[in-house]
Amino acid sequence: MLDHVNGATRLFPIIGDPIRYVDSPVRLTRSFDARGHNAVCVPMQVPGPALDDVMRGLSSTLNVDGVLVTMPHKGTVFGHCATSSERATLLGAVSVLRRNADGTWHGDMLDGLAFVKAQKDHGAQPAGSRVLLLGSGGAGSAIAIALVDEGVEELVVHDVDEARAADLAELLSGRGHASVTTGAPDPTGCDMVCNATPLGMAEGDPLPVAADLLTSSMFVGDVIAGHGLTPFLAAAEAAGCRTANGGQMVEAVQELMVDFMVGERTS
Amino acid sequence: MLDHVNGATRLFPIIGDPIRYVDSPVRLTRSFDARGHNAVCVPMQVPGPALDDVMRGLSSTLNVDGVLVTMPHKGTVFGHCATSSERATLLGAVSVLRRNADGTWHGDMLDGLAFVKAQKDHGAQPAGSRVLLLGSGGAGSAIAIALVDEGVEELVVHDVDEARAADLAELLSGRGHASVTTGAPDPTGCDMVCNATPLGMAEGDPLPVAADLLTSSMFVGDVIAGHGLTPFLAAAEAAGCRTANGGQMVEAVQELMVDFMVGERTS
Repeated sequence: MLDHVNGATRLFPIIGDPIRYVDSPVRLTRSFDARGHNAVCVPMQVPGPALDDVMRGLSSTLNVDGVLVTMPHKGTVFGHCATSSERATLLGAVSVLRRNADGTWHGDMLDGLAFVKAQKDHGAQPAGSRVLLLGSGGAGSAIAIALVDEGVEELVVHDVDEARAADLAELLSGRGHASVTTGAPDPTGCDMVCNATPLGMAEGDPLPVAADLLTSSMFVGDVIAGHGLTPFLAAAEAAGCRTANGGQMVEAVQELMVDFMVGERTS
Repeated sequence: MLDHVNGATRLFPIIGDPIRYVDSPVRLTRSFDARGHNAVCVPMQVPGPALDDVMRGLSSTLNVDGVLVTMPHKGTVFGHCATSSERATLLGAVSVLRRNADGTWHGDMLDGLAFVKAQKDHGAQPAGSRVLLLGSGGAGSAIAIALVDEGVEELVVHDVDEARAADLAELLSGRGHASVTTGAPDPTGCDMVCNATPLGMAEGDPLPVAADLLTSSMFVGDVIAGHGLTPFLAAAEAAGCRTANGGQMVEAVQELMVDFMVGERTS
C-alpha cells in the first residue's frame, strides 16, 4: 500500500476524460509499490482539445516516466510517440507510453494482449482455434491482432458497421497464418466467442449473440467491465460455457502496463 | 495518512527544479487528508525552459486545483496568473496558485507570511518593533512586506548588493507606517534580526551578523532549512536570544498553503 508520495516519487499519469472512475491509480500504484518502485499513478482529467498541451507539459516534466492513455485519447496520443510497437503502429493507437533513452515516447497498445491473457488465464486455448469476434472498433481491433498473434486458425469478425469489419479483416490479411473474414454473429462451430462491442453497458441492451446459439464447448469472453455480470456472460454461463469477464481483462491490462513501465518489457 | 490516490483525487502539483528534496508532497498530502480532502501534492521536476509548456498543460487539466511553486519558477509563474494578491503583485512572484471561478489562476506569495508566523509562534512581537533584515532577494523581499504589513516600526535592510537593498526600501516606501531604510549588518538596538540570505547553507559560510553584536533581548530568525542548527542560530542561542528556524518557517508555509488551497482563504 502506498505510504506516501514524496519529492523523489516518479509519476505515471493516466490521461482521459472522464477520469474519476478509472481504477488504475489505485491498482498501478499498489503494483509499483509491491515491486519496490517509488512511483504513483495519478489521474489527469484531460478533455480532447487540451490533449496536445497536456502531452507537451508531461513530456517536459523530468520525473514523468510513463503515461497511461484511456478514452478518448488512444488514437491522438499515438501521434506523440517517436516510436511504437508494431501492433500499436498497425492500429494507430496506444494505451501506454514509456520514455526512450532520448526522452521521447515509445507507445504500445496492451488492450488486446490483456484480453487474450484473461481468456487464457481462465481456460481458453486460442492457438489453432476458431473464434467469433463481435465488434471491430478500438477494442475489437486490438483484440483481433492479439488473437491472430496468438495463433488462432480462423477469426470471423462481425460488426453492425460492415465496412469497419471489412477494414479490420483487410488490415490483418497476411498477418500470421489466420484466416480472417467477416460474417454474421453466429458462433456455431466456434471455440471462442469474444464480445468487443459496448453491448452490456446499458440496461436493456440486446445480447451481441443470440443466447440459444451458445453451447458448452465455447469459451466466452466480454470486454465490459464495471457493470457486474453482463447478460451475455450470464447467458454463456447458463449454457455451460467457461467465461472471462471485463474486470479480469482490466486486471490483466494493469499488470501488463506495470511490466511495460518498470518491469519485463512487453515489446 | 493517505490511503490511496484514486480516479477522483484532485491534484496539487509542486513545480520546481530540483524537486526531489521538497517535503511538500508528504506534508501537504497529509494535511489535505486530515481536512477530509481527496487530494495529493505531487512533485513535478520542471526545468526553466519547460515552464510555459508545463503550466499550459496543468491549466488544461481539469482536476488540477492548485499549483505550488518553488525555485526557480516563482517569478516566471507570476506571468501565468490572471489575478494575484496585492503582495504577490508588488513582488512579481508567487508561491501558490489556485483556480478562479473561470479556471484561470490566482496567485499569492506566502513565504513572508510564513516566516513572520514562525517568529510570532516562537515569541517574537513584530508590531512596533525595530527589525534588521539580512538579504533582499526573493525571500528577503517577501519577508520585508510581511514585516511591514505586521506593523513593524522600523525596518533596516542590509544586502551585500546595496542597490538591491535600496530597490526594496524604495518598493516599500509609503507602505504601512514603517520606516524602511538600508544599512549595515549591525543589530544594535533591534528587537528582531532576520536572516534571509543563503549564509548557513554551505560549510564555512560567515555569519550574516557578527556574533558579538547579538544580545539576549533580540529575537533571531533564519530562513535556512534542512541544514540542522545553523551557526547563526547557534550563536543566537549562545547569546541567550529566542529563535525560530527555517524548518519552522517551512511548517508554517505548508499550513498556509493548504489554507489557501482548500481552507480559509489567506487572501
